[in-house]
Amino acid sequence: MSNAIEFYYDFSSPFGYFASERIEALAARVGRKTVWRPYLMGAVFKAIGTDSLVNIPMKGAYSKMDMERNARLMNIPFVWPEQFPFMSIAACRAFYALVDQDEEGAKALSLALSRKTFAEGQSIIKPEEVLAVAATLGHDPEELGAAMADQVTKDRVRMEVDRALEREVFGTPFFFVDGERFWGCDRMDMMEKWIETGGW
Amino acid sequence: MSNAIEFYYDFSSPFGYFASERIEALAARVGRKTVWRPYLMGAVFKAIGTDSLVNIPMKGAYSKMDMERNARLMNIPFVWPEQFPFMSIAACRAFYALVDQDEEGAKALSLALSRKTFAEGQSIIKPEEVLAVAATLGHDPEELGAAMADQVTKDRVRMEVDRALEREVFGTPFFFVDGERFWGCDRMDMMEKWIETGGW
Repeated sequence: MSNAIEFYYDFSSPFGYFASERIEALAARVGRKTVWRPYLMGAVFKAIGTDSLVNIPMKGAYSKMDMERNARLMNIPFVWPEQFPFMSIAACRAFYALVDQDEEGAKALSLALSRKTFAEGQSIIKPEEVLAVAATLGHDPEELGAAMADQVTKDRVRMEVDRALEREVFGTPFFFVDGERFWGCDRMDMMEKWIETGGW
Repeated sequence: MSNAIEFYYDFSSPFGYFASERIEALAARVGRKTVWRPYLMGAVFKAIGTDSLVNIPMKGAYSKMDMERNARLMNIPFVWPEQFPFMSIAACRAFYALVDQDEEGAKALSLALSRKTFAEGQSIIKPEEVLAVAATLGHDPEELGAAMADQVTKDRVRMEVDRALEREVFGTPFFFVDGERFWGCDRMDMMEKWIETGGW
């Protein structure tokens, strides 16, 4: 892990999607590797007694507007999928089924899944929907589908979610780098400055 | 009100304090007036069933660190007052007792109160503590104290809090300008860009 930027996100978060679109360029500018760690926010919401931002009175409507405004500012295509928030466990399982053998492939699949749902508005909830996206990247749907359904993968996802909770990853996106924590798309510029300067 | 920047904040919020230190310079750069509107976040927390950021598990500890990190980055002196979060109704009453007759004086008092508690770490909870700060700015403590205790002032504060709730001001700082809403110190740069460009 060393001096890599660890990037936690939930596939069902628009801000996680925006971060996915930006993190590799940021890392390249500061000469760092990245470690992508999708997880399930639902477990965290349960643990700290909160809810998805968009379900909170007042904050919900504002946040949706703010996400759309941020997307336009960053020139990132953005639409709302029909079902939102949504369960992202299938996407998570696909990622962890791949990541140990093919880290770059797992990142590319992650980005393709995020774009499928937040740029095209299509569902990535069902395993077969995830596999259809994976197939466009050259993955064999049967092979990947079997790996996603494997208990080893299920346990891996659970372990990663538990680990995120242990590390108090209470939001998305959430970054660890150089012993510092950064929560939110709106802390990415600060994180870049922190890495460049060694902190303040 | 016209094209002014309306600035809502709670005196007990560090991010509200940081915004107080920055808003006039921002407004001057874009050629806008400001309207300061302190209010009481407690009423909002009750309405939307949430709590002060710093009291939320995990998020609380992170947020405190993030506030300190932001203060250092912006070169704003910052310490934690002994009691935090705290009741800021006395500060609110002092502000609204002054603002109609002396808007600039009310802003100056607001900033002095915020600095007293977040730069010096002193309490501004009690009316006499608020009045001691006001006295250093040339206000007559007896006169201002009487105005703060007046039912007209108490009603004004309640009205402003109700108005904030009606306008769904669910956080601090919170800005309205050109029909757009911006929540958070970390949206001030975006707000400035929005005003300059006419939005996107």
